[in-house]
Amino acid sequence: MAKAATHTQLTDKNNLAFEVTTGALPASKKIYASGEIFPDIRVPLREIALSKNAGESSLAVYDTSGSYTDPAARIDIYRGLPKIRQSWILARGDVEAYDGREVKPEDNGLKGAARGAAVEEFPNVNARPLRAKNGKAVTQMAYARAGIVTPEMEFIAIRENEGRRVAGGRWQVADKKDSSDTRHPTPDTLKPYQRGNSWGANIPPYVTPEFVRSEIAAGRAIIPANINHPEAEPMIIGRNFKVKINANIGNSAVTSSVAEEVEKMVWAIRWGADNVMDLSTGRNIHNIREWIIRNSPVPIGTVPIYQALEKVGGVAEELTYEIYRDTLIEQCEQGVDYFTIHAGVRLPFIPMTQDRKTGIVPRGGSILAKWCMSHHKENFLYTNFEDICDIMRAYDVSFSLGDGLRPGSQHDANDEAQFSELKTLGDLTKIAWARDCQVMVEGPGHVPMHLIKENMDKQLELCHEAPFYTLGPLTTDIAPGYDHITSGIGAAMIGWFGTAMLCYVTPKEHLGLPDRDDVKVGVVTYKIAAHAADLAKGHPGAHRRDDALSQARFDFRWQDQFNLALDPETAKDFHDETLPAEGAKVAHFCSMCGPKFCSMKISQEVRDFAAAEKKKEEGMAEMAEKFKESGGEIYQKVG
Amino acid sequence: MAKAATHTQLTDKNNLAFEVTTGALPASKKIYASGEIFPDIRVPLREIALSKNAGESSLAVYDTSGSYTDPAARIDIYRGLPKIRQSWILARGDVEAYDGREVKPEDNGLKGAARGAAVEEFPNVNARPLRAKNGKAVTQMAYARAGIVTPEMEFIAIRENEGRRVAGGRWQVADKKDSSDTRHPTPDTLKPYQRGNSWGANIPPYVTPEFVRSEIAAGRAIIPANINHPEAEPMIIGRNFKVKINANIGNSAVTSSVAEEVEKMVWAIRWGADNVMDLSTGRNIHNIREWIIRNSPVPIGTVPIYQALEKVGGVAEELTYEIYRDTLIEQCEQGVDYFTIHAGVRLPFIPMTQDRKTGIVPRGGSILAKWCMSHHKENFLYTNFEDICDIMRAYDVSFSLGDGLRPGSQHDANDEAQFSELKTLGDLTKIAWARDCQVMVEGPGHVPMHLIKENMDKQLELCHEAPFYTLGPLTTDIAPGYDHITSGIGAAMIGWFGTAMLCYVTPKEHLGLPDRDDVKVGVVTYKIAAHAADLAKGHPGAHRRDDALSQARFDFRWQDQFNLALDPETAKDFHDETLPAEGAKVAHFCSMCGPKFCSMKISQEVRDFAAAEKKKEEGMAEMAEKFKESGGEIYQKVG
Repeated sequence: MAKAATHTQLTDKNNLAFEVTTGALPASKKIYASGEIFPDIRVPLREIALSKNAGESSLAVYDTSGSYTDPAARIDIYRGLPKIRQSWILARGDVEAYDGREVKPEDNGLKGAARGAAVEEFPNVNARPLRAKNGKAVTQMAYARAGIVTPEMEFIAIRENEGRRVAGGRWQVADKKDSSDTRHPTPDTLKPYQRGNSWGANIPPYVTPEFVRSEIAAGRAIIPANINHPEAEPMIIGRNFKVKINANIGNSAVTSSVAEEVEKMVWAIRWGADNVMDLSTGRNIHNIREWIIRNSPVPIGTVPIYQALEKVGGVAEELTYEIYRDTLIEQCEQGVDYFTIHAGVRLPFIPMTQDRKTGIVPRGGSILAKWCMSHHKENFLYTNFEDICDIMRAYDVSFSLGDGLRPGSQHDANDEAQFSELKTLGDLTKIAWARDCQVMVEGPGHVPMHLIKENMDKQLELCHEAPFYTLGPLTTDIAPGYDHITSGIGAAMIGWFGTAMLCYVTPKEHLGLPDRDDVKVGVVTYKIAAHAADLAKGHPGAHRRDDALSQARFDFRWQDQFNLALDPETAKDFHDETLPAEGAKVAHFCSMCGPKFCSMKISQEVRDFAAAEKKKEEGMAEMAEKFKESGGEIYQKVG
Repeated sequence: MAKAATHTQLTDKNNLAFEVTTGALPASKKIYASGEIFPDIRVPLREIALSKNAGESSLAVYDTSGSYTDPAARIDIYRGLPKIRQSWILARGDVEAYDGREVKPEDNGLKGAARGAAVEEFPNVNARPLRAKNGKAVTQMAYARAGIVTPEMEFIAIRENEGRRVAGGRWQVADKKDSSDTRHPTPDTLKPYQRGNSWGANIPPYVTPEFVRSEIAAGRAIIPANINHPEAEPMIIGRNFKVKINANIGNSAVTSSVAEEVEKMVWAIRWGADNVMDLSTGRNIHNIREWIIRNSPVPIGTVPIYQALEKVGGVAEELTYEIYRDTLIEQCEQGVDYFTIHAGVRLPFIPMTQDRKTGIVPRGGSILAKWCMSHHKENFLYTNFEDICDIMRAYDVSFSLGDGLRPGSQHDANDEAQFSELKTLGDLTKIAWARDCQVMVEGPGHVPMHLIKENMDKQLELCHEAPFYTLGPLTTDIAPGYDHITSGIGAAMIGWFGTAMLCYVTPKEHLGLPDRDDVKVGVVTYKIAAHAADLAKGHPGAHRRDDALSQARFDFRWQDQFNLALDPETAKDFHDETLPAEGAKVAHFCSMCGPKFCSMKISQEVRDFAAAEKKKEEGMAEMAEKFKESGGEIYQKVG
């Protein structure tokens, strides 16, 4: 079962070669749960097998990796992934296929003389995309508000429960033999580490399809799911669900190719990225995006202003709403699931950035600020916001309202410009909601620890509980090369406070374009942050993996310890650096302390000793009780 | 000035070869500030040179690296570092040299047949160590309580200010041309990011020798400074000072050699370790420790029970207080600056660990628990605590009261066993203080984010504000191989809440003995955590480095950005991976976004544009004012 990762090399007739990572993670098996309301849905989970003496036979965990980790699936980058949502979308009867917009050379930045160096077109482009009939809203929010539970919603409910079953409820996750956790303890029986502090989030013991629906209807969560990206496995972003992470990929004008970017996507989801943003700039971005979307089982986000800017040769002043609008439609038809739209960078806020240390740092924000300044006009995304809503509702593209004025340094955190924009994003959220559009709101950035909570509190208040999606935040500026860590600290904290999705930061942040290794480090760091946040919020499923791994550690089940880790390969490699022999995998020590000093081993001896003593004498527990009764001098009651 | 790191290879007549890293960090110069009260003291600082157009010529930062980064110093591992404190110690007239305890084969774990494989003895062992005359207390606490400001205290005051000068005060740091920050702004003029939230800590605008004295006298801080380690540069551990970090080194029975361990120490302090603990087990630990102490400019801590256990062949049951006591004296004479002493692992607390997931995880805790259980007796460190105090006050060895019952998993966090022990450590603190002994208290471990603050709050309350010294804590158990990150999150938070020193965790934690690379990653990660904590606490000097680096970033002074980073080499290497040409070091972009999409560049253009506009028309600021006046609809006042 424990197959090593392999690289599937693929070459088509034109010798465009792809090499993507496939194969299961160690000791892992892809399993699929089916629905009750929609029996045909197949919800992926990763089942980690445990060794015979583990007590449990396996642990099921959330799985973002798509078919690439399923040995039974046939991977064909030239064809793309199966369109699992196509029949659900068509069954709703509210969409129509039409002749899509024709791809122009400038979509790939190849206007005029610059032709020639184009990335090959994806061979199976669908020339007839879907859109809503007659201006209807085909968004998950519209369905949710109409009381409809969609297959996407049941899919998500099963997925969020990670194999845990609702006890005695009306709706049950399909029975699964290996699921041991049949009853979730009631809150008052929980230990403090399980109980968490959710800061007002309302996380149910089990997620049901109806709970998903109600959260989407209220705007507290989104399901990024363009009707033209039927390959995507539905997932949810909201404060009352598991904290999600996003990985940014994309080439820049300086470096990277399409094959590298597709593999970065596959690699990012292998390690746990829930979403991927394609931030490509430079040439070929239309074609690169097509390859990525057709092969992505996770939602894809973009920042359309990047492509629009390429279409006007990089001259911000020459941007127009018409060019931008055409770009939106181009990307809606391709299947982008959410757009970062910097509609809150308003003209009057720009002077508020004059005293900043680092001005306007988001690329989109700075482009729009330049446009506003040079024309002395209000941001065209703000003035055309209703029209943008009408486009997005026709494809169910979610808004990710961009924080174009987020701080780029500790110095600029939580300033007037930032919070003025946030208030505007809250206003825009209401406008989008009125049109049944799904919305999340982006947040910073660079923020010292003592100012992080204010960001979350203000966002909840000003943006009416729309999901928050933050970049880090970085808690200090002095460690370029380690900004996955400076930001992982802030990400864990803001995730705990209520942020629904954390945008990763790689070690290359501020220094260069991340490569494959950087992507992995960024993703694993952010999985740590998201999981630490789930634990601290008291997410009912979160502690199971910590418990299983800690138990494996105490039992010296080294293989189980590796296999349960976020990155089993690195854990095993580190162990094997000093103790490579197979026998060391069952040894009751490692090279850190050596055989005589292993506390886990000694602690087990103490436990055995205590058990023997208990039989012999009055029992250790009784002795402790007596001690407590004898006076409170030393004994201190917890909590 | 910007010399690359070199490796100084040293070989003595017996061919024992050392290779230690020497040379200044990039663009850095070692400078020494002298005292006012004690003009002869030389306080090291690292001055980072900035480029000509930076506004400031340099930034002075705290420097833990000792002579190894001073090109003017002669490094001789066989002789050891200069004994800078020797004259201060002797001048107090309260110590005497005496014939020290003879080194026995079992001190190196070489009893009986096991001789032969010994590490060579340090060639310049001082056979006549110092101790207090007539049972006097020669501790910094005793002096502080007597109202005496020692040279150590003035040294620390200058060091903590990092080149900032007290304005108009009686006591002034020696004048330094490049120090631009001559006046610290009064708190009400501070921006929110500078103000911090200190959770009740009392951090003065400037540290003075008198403030150091008063904090030591109150027990709120310690200066680990054994009179037999005169090579150490004085440093302070306390909630009202900069947050410090400790790096653990030491061989285990499985791997590592003396040359490696000395280089690990030199390497750890190069990257910023304020303290180093030698956790060697196995053979040769006496000799290895001697090499480390004689060459260490930072305080060295140990866990004496490790060596005591070696002396009884690893059989915990055979430990006696006599063997332990003899080990304490052995290490006091060598110059260990603080001892981890697990005197709080009391017999009645052991049964409280029965329901834990991971039992008793500190090695010392598990050894003592085993001893207690097998003899059914109270911990001999608890019953002999006063005698231990009398030994430690005679050499000024500080207590690090070990948390032998700290949690080893999320499951076991903040439980009855842990807090019962903490209460005992608070009781022992008072006993030690009554004998003028310096004390810090150790803390966890593995703690989910929502339970971290309770640890700090209870420690402050139960341990009477003695400095807290925590390991991490790790905020999740699911990422072996990345526990520097799982714990860096918890370390930053608990540092912010008031922990005085953070014990690092390396990527190898739980998996094997860290090597040189792991030590660096661990140290840099913990410098990030400590600095983020200083920033969030509102430490008055902390934001200067963030501001300087962010300004360099905004100005595209790439070299300054690298040089100001915690790890200049990695920052530069990452940048140069894609843009190695020298010209790229002044380019207004990097490979992350490419030339057209660099927000910093566009933002500067926006700023220039706004400045021009201001002259032309009414001015941007005025326009913003008008906007605000026109109604509060969009404008949202911060804070």
